[in-house]
Amino acid sequence: MIIDCHGHYTTTPPAVEAYRNRQKDILKTNPDHIFETDDIDVSDDEIRESIACNQLKLQQERGTDLTIFSPRANWMGHHIGNASTSRVWTEQQNNLIRRVCDLFPQNFVPVCQLPQSPGTDLTASIAELERCVTKMGFIGCNLNPDPTGGYWSEARLGDRYWYPFYEKLVELDVPAMIHVSGACHHAMDTTSSYYLGADTTAFVHLMLSDVFKDFPTLKIIIPHGGGAVPYHWGRFRGIAQDMGIADLDQRVFGNIFFDTCVYHQQGIDLLLDVIPTANILFASEMIGAVRGIDPRTGHHYDDTRIYIDASDRVDAAAKRQIFAENALRVFSRLKVA
Amino acid sequence: MIIDCHGHYTTTPPAVEAYRNRQKDILKTNPDHIFETDDIDVSDDEIRESIACNQLKLQQERGTDLTIFSPRANWMGHHIGNASTSRVWTEQQNNLIRRVCDLFPQNFVPVCQLPQSPGTDLTASIAELERCVTKMGFIGCNLNPDPTGGYWSEARLGDRYWYPFYEKLVELDVPAMIHVSGACHHAMDTTSSYYLGADTTAFVHLMLSDVFKDFPTLKIIIPHGGGAVPYHWGRFRGIAQDMGIADLDQRVFGNIFFDTCVYHQQGIDLLLDVIPTANILFASEMIGAVRGIDPRTGHHYDDTRIYIDASDRVDAAAKRQIFAENALRVFSRLKVA
Repeated sequence: MIIDCHGHYTTTPPAVEAYRNRQKDILKTNPDHIFETDDIDVSDDEIRESIACNQLKLQQERGTDLTIFSPRANWMGHHIGNASTSRVWTEQQNNLIRRVCDLFPQNFVPVCQLPQSPGTDLTASIAELERCVTKMGFIGCNLNPDPTGGYWSEARLGDRYWYPFYEKLVELDVPAMIHVSGACHHAMDTTSSYYLGADTTAFVHLMLSDVFKDFPTLKIIIPHGGGAVPYHWGRFRGIAQDMGIADLDQRVFGNIFFDTCVYHQQGIDLLLDVIPTANILFASEMIGAVRGIDPRTGHHYDDTRIYIDASDRVDAAAKRQIFAENALRVFSRLKVA
Repeated sequence: MIIDCHGHYTTTPPAVEAYRNRQKDILKTNPDHIFETDDIDVSDDEIRESIACNQLKLQQERGTDLTIFSPRANWMGHHIGNASTSRVWTEQQNNLIRRVCDLFPQNFVPVCQLPQSPGTDLTASIAELERCVTKMGFIGCNLNPDPTGGYWSEARLGDRYWYPFYEKLVELDVPAMIHVSGACHHAMDTTSSYYLGADTTAFVHLMLSDVFKDFPTLKIIIPHGGGAVPYHWGRFRGIAQDMGIADLDQRVFGNIFFDTCVYHQQGIDLLLDVIPTANILFASEMIGAVRGIDPRTGHHYDDTRIYIDASDRVDAAAKRQIFAENALRVFSRLKVA
């Protein structure tokens, strides 16, 4: 059993992008336009085709079983428009994910995006999380630590601003994957400097905060192998020690999990070597940031199963934890036959 | 022979901080105050003591020979005040480094900071680089890719804005280490998320630019083990391939070098494994971001020599390159008896 905990619907039918472009066009003439609940006109056949030829095909080729599936991350675009823009777009994206999972119930399980919007509180995000989890069977969410798209002008993750949302996560017993969206800041490049920098920044916010003291059962997944964190684990342990905030392992490993979206053997080896097995969740983020085949291996860069299979850093029992058991524990609402 | 290519004067006598605080006080009442060339009142004895009990002592204890030494990075503070603030502060900091190297000529070689200031061009930085290199024997500089202290509102490193400075680097045949200063952005933590994120961001700017095509002999050092880059080398190779910008190794390794400021064995092993030996320069950044002793090893986290000595990823000849030969090549003005 192999569960890929990090997949986005990056291959949506054309009507989805067209809808979003219409939103952007309306915002050009009126940034304050209030969007109303709406639906994107996509047929089941279009969804079936967009998945069967892409994510499902790769799932089968790579021998993974189940993908925890959420809307396209770099299209969440929380910085675009106003709160109603984000609410309507998010509801539709989540509805679409539900439809994918209904069409392929053996292969995909839904995780939602949130209608975050800079300058607003998290009331709408709490409502959407509740709708998705309690009414639509979602098992987690993607939480954007920087809804401004690279400016980081909102509150740090340790700030009370986020607490009502953390409370809801704990109440529903679902994890949040920390995931920024597309960068709109000229200095940031979405899938490289921005994603990896945001993962590292989110980790630092949490490590320096009281969040896990205040929410001992909160579960946070940091994607892309934890950004720069495992590679610099000594630096982070040393900084924690210098600041007198105790042993870093004890401080974070009850609550933080890293995924395996690291696209070469040596990176995966380091991750498996440095981070406790219980805190690693298998993931590929296919079809995502890197789509090519590595000429050095003959495999897709993002076929991360291969690196884990090949790694000698952990034994077979640990690999079973990473491939499935940890995901079943962290995503406690995920029930597999 | 062991050359540590990354050390900052973090243990300056009290008069240095007092001077800077006076600058800040003046700026509080008049942000446009024009500072005049000035000198900080520090005696040779004070400098001697501040070095002998700290950097020199650790150098001797750790068995390294020479430190390439520059002003304290998180005090460069390019975002503070105006262009004259930065010019006067920078000249004094560089003069102080020259004095350290005059007092301990066997142990320290000078690298300068630059009087960068947001919203201004690089004319003053070019002049200061020229003064330091041609008149004072400096062998390189620290270039701040984000003089705004975390806002990244200035030009990307691939932008023509930086070209006059790159021209001067090439003309003088000195390398630049890319190094941000203290973060003034609430979301960033200086020595963790900000430093590592900036290293990664700088690499991406350069990798996606024509800088090395336009300046084939430019030499850029990315510190802190290259931020997140080596850990995610597969991601970066894959992104370059997807973008059609050819083989990443060929694209960057004629010009980019990573230092070894990675504070645990597994991180150093990965660095040595992934990055060509010719592109790795030994460094510790002591006394810097992490000052404690790792209870797991009994050694200082930042005693990076130990990890390289212990690593089985490269042979003795490669270690000689990393410890000294590469530094002598990259810092071509460094002549060792």
